[in-house]
Amino acid sequence: MNFRMIFYVLGLVMNFESVFLLVPCVTAVIYREKEGIAYLIMAVVCLAAGIVMTAKKPKNRSIYAKEGFAAVALSWILLSVAGAVPFTVSGEIPSFIDALFEIISGVTTTGASILTDVEALSHASLLWRSFSHWFGGMGVLVFILAVMPLTGGRNIHLMRAESPGPSVEKLVPKIKQSALFLYGVYLFLTVLQAVLLLAGGVNFFESINIAFATAGTGGFAVRNSSFAEYSAYVQYVTSIFMILFGVNFNVYFLLLAKKFKVIFSFEEVWQFFAIIGVAVLAITYNVRHLFPTLEEAFRSSLFQVGTIISTTGFATTDYNLWPAFSKIILLLLMFIGACAGSTGGGIKVSRVALAWKGVRSEMVHACHPNSVRVAKYNKNPVSVELLRSVYVFLAAYIFIFTGSVLLLSLNGNDFETNFSAVAATLNNIGPGFSKVGPTGNYAFFNGFSKFVLMFDMLAGRLEIFPMLLVCSPHFWHNNKKFFRQRWRRK
Amino acid sequence: MNFRMIFYVLGLVMNFESVFLLVPCVTAVIYREKEGIAYLIMAVVCLAAGIVMTAKKPKNRSIYAKEGFAAVALSWILLSVAGAVPFTVSGEIPSFIDALFEIISGVTTTGASILTDVEALSHASLLWRSFSHWFGGMGVLVFILAVMPLTGGRNIHLMRAESPGPSVEKLVPKIKQSALFLYGVYLFLTVLQAVLLLAGGVNFFESINIAFATAGTGGFAVRNSSFAEYSAYVQYVTSIFMILFGVNFNVYFLLLAKKFKVIFSFEEVWQFFAIIGVAVLAITYNVRHLFPTLEEAFRSSLFQVGTIISTTGFATTDYNLWPAFSKIILLLLMFIGACAGSTGGGIKVSRVALAWKGVRSEMVHACHPNSVRVAKYNKNPVSVELLRSVYVFLAAYIFIFTGSVLLLSLNGNDFETNFSAVAATLNNIGPGFSKVGPTGNYAFFNGFSKFVLMFDMLAGRLEIFPMLLVCSPHFWHNNKKFFRQRWRRK
Repeated sequence: MNFRMIFYVLGLVMNFESVFLLVPCVTAVIYREKEGIAYLIMAVVCLAAGIVMTAKKPKNRSIYAKEGFAAVALSWILLSVAGAVPFTVSGEIPSFIDALFEIISGVTTTGASILTDVEALSHASLLWRSFSHWFGGMGVLVFILAVMPLTGGRNIHLMRAESPGPSVEKLVPKIKQSALFLYGVYLFLTVLQAVLLLAGGVNFFESINIAFATAGTGGFAVRNSSFAEYSAYVQYVTSIFMILFGVNFNVYFLLLAKKFKVIFSFEEVWQFFAIIGVAVLAITYNVRHLFPTLEEAFRSSLFQVGTIISTTGFATTDYNLWPAFSKIILLLLMFIGACAGSTGGGIKVSRVALAWKGVRSEMVHACHPNSVRVAKYNKNPVSVELLRSVYVFLAAYIFIFTGSVLLLSLNGNDFETNFSAVAATLNNIGPGFSKVGPTGNYAFFNGFSKFVLMFDMLAGRLEIFPMLLVCSPHFWHNNKKFFRQRWRRK
Repeated sequence: MNFRMIFYVLGLVMNFESVFLLVPCVTAVIYREKEGIAYLIMAVVCLAAGIVMTAKKPKNRSIYAKEGFAAVALSWILLSVAGAVPFTVSGEIPSFIDALFEIISGVTTTGASILTDVEALSHASLLWRSFSHWFGGMGVLVFILAVMPLTGGRNIHLMRAESPGPSVEKLVPKIKQSALFLYGVYLFLTVLQAVLLLAGGVNFFESINIAFATAGTGGFAVRNSSFAEYSAYVQYVTSIFMILFGVNFNVYFLLLAKKFKVIFSFEEVWQFFAIIGVAVLAITYNVRHLFPTLEEAFRSSLFQVGTIISTTGFATTDYNLWPAFSKIILLLLMFIGACAGSTGGGIKVSRVALAWKGVRSEMVHACHPNSVRVAKYNKNPVSVELLRSVYVFLAAYIFIFTGSVLLLSLNGNDFETNFSAVAATLNNIGPGFSKVGPTGNYAFFNGFSKFVLMFDMLAGRLEIFPMLLVCSPHFWHNNKKFFRQRWRRK
């Protein structure tokens, strides 16, 4: 394990965190809020730490899969701890565990909150929450790769470990260009949504916040009622953008490259839209009697389906009160999640489709033992290796899921609350059902339960293996040897 | 597909069904019940059908994996339809759908009932329900293989398709001997339990019923209160036997062969006992305040853990009222289930352990990419093929599970009811939580929901693939060609 390089990457992350922290600082200056001081102090601390950590460039810059995993997991933990401090220092979230929960929920684009009254927060803190969704959505290391000339070996592993999906590839041969393209499209769509919201009468501050939270498929709202008070226009615009941010970003690259034929063979995206279409129609029909007009039933269904399959987590209505069938559809969508290569969470449409193809080809093979047909996905043959990685992911997912529900139940609460709290955090959605439903929040859990849910949010965003790796004794055993050797050399 | 041979096997099953039906006939004679006539009529019908179907022995007797799957799935469907008729003809369960649900619940050893008052049933029908657990538990085709000289090709595939577990092997080189040994041990343990119950003051009829239902890990009781009224001795005896019938039967073979060293390396069995031990201790501690004495808390925990992990489904208490932590442990045990090669259902301890080994070796591989360590289970190296079969099983399991919950929710009812009804039927347990808890039953579901649950029970007992195969268009497409060819030849 190249621990020196990991340490260097962590230093870079600290430097960038200090830049990110300037955003709430500027906000505080504009609104003349004293909370800005907390953010400024932390920006200075991060910068100092970053400069020390990156003072000496490592000679061996090689990064393999394991270094990628470790660097990403440790980066995100460090990032969260540093990002939580201003909440507590400013006194807005006195408990550090709560502050940590809130910022992990932010960077992992979950949107689960321990706050009972978000409107009481300062503008600086509100924007810090929304902004954490934004850089967490596309990824901090992807951002670093986009703007810094990080030469040396195989940085693709950093990108792979941070980007969601069963197989992450560069769009163009150079990583820097790929990362730059992703962030370019991301920024463009974010600005576009903010402009459309402004045009719909939303004020400047709220427009930016909503656009950040939508782009990262996060879900932190700036109003206690989440999205219920906004106009139909704002709800439609946000619905559409939530879905757009749940689409595999490769599609936007192909669109710009005018490779329309390739888009047609991009099964995942069509499946994503098909699932949304079926779910919206089924739920609209199922809940039509709960709304005064069919348009409102449709709008509410579209918004809730969009917010849940993209794993954003805004809400216009309390779907806890919907019929069982609609609730189960929403629960299913929570697990399926968005496309690979989007800012959304969940298991991902492609993994579900690949697992299904695996089962199907098993049945075909049972009927025709001598056939050698190979299943295809997105026009590429499905390799044994890819299928195995999907299966291992699913198995690890199930173990973490059940373990988390078990640990959460130590805190009491009903089954629906525990089950959906894990579903809503491991899939990075935010609101679940029952006590953690759209009108509830996560404040009532005890400290231990909150730590379990924090782990789930990070495991969900980083797709399990990076977090499992840094929790595995094998990893620390390796590093123990590394530190011992360094000690001896001195 | 060798459809002629499958047809022949179905004929054999009909013959054996007619013999099985004599058991309730004899019971009716003893208790002078008119319901016996319904069973006698059906026995004659089955025999007639069987004789016609087996009149001509097929020349090509080869049975491969696909024929094994198809023969087993179709046998069990036919068996259930024939077994349900007497319930309706005798007038004891007027609705045929309900009767079919009850008998499928019987043969699949689920024990989920649509009856609100079992004590109103005739002795003949009560024994038919319990006896269906017994022959369903070890398997009808295994029974046929044990007592009939079914020469020809590869009957191991019939046994494999009907016996639970990721890899089914013969105990001794000859299939007939293996099947005979299994049924021998099975009968011995059943008789032993019945004798111990008689010694504990349970009357003859109830002793036989309980022993049948315990041996098959079924769960149909002859009293409305299930097991609450029986003495502590009877509850302890039944707890122990439920656990014994959940053990891999290979262990009994090894015990008789005095291969104690091999038993020590039989991880699955030790894991099974370890899970039971931890669960019983955790639940006893968690529910101790609900019982007057610690002994009663322990006894109740042992009984409930034993009944659920072995997927039997008796109940001495309403665990719906237990704390969340205990309920979640029981829910987890529902999914884990018993050992492979036992009469119990669920995912099986070995599959869970193998999936865990798969995830672990993935992590080890990430830390040491060049190591070539192969994971071992039960002292055998875990092959890629075995691991893949476990993963495919899990994926198919998840698809069927979620699909069933979705279809069930069309009928309304709360999430806990729908979720646990599928868990309790797909894992062949019987009682779940909420409305289908130990004090509830399955009568309130509509016809469509009952069919979904019937499919789940069969899919659970036959471990999914046989049922998927006969529902797959590929299978029927194959057979359509077969029938067309036969037609042309004539």
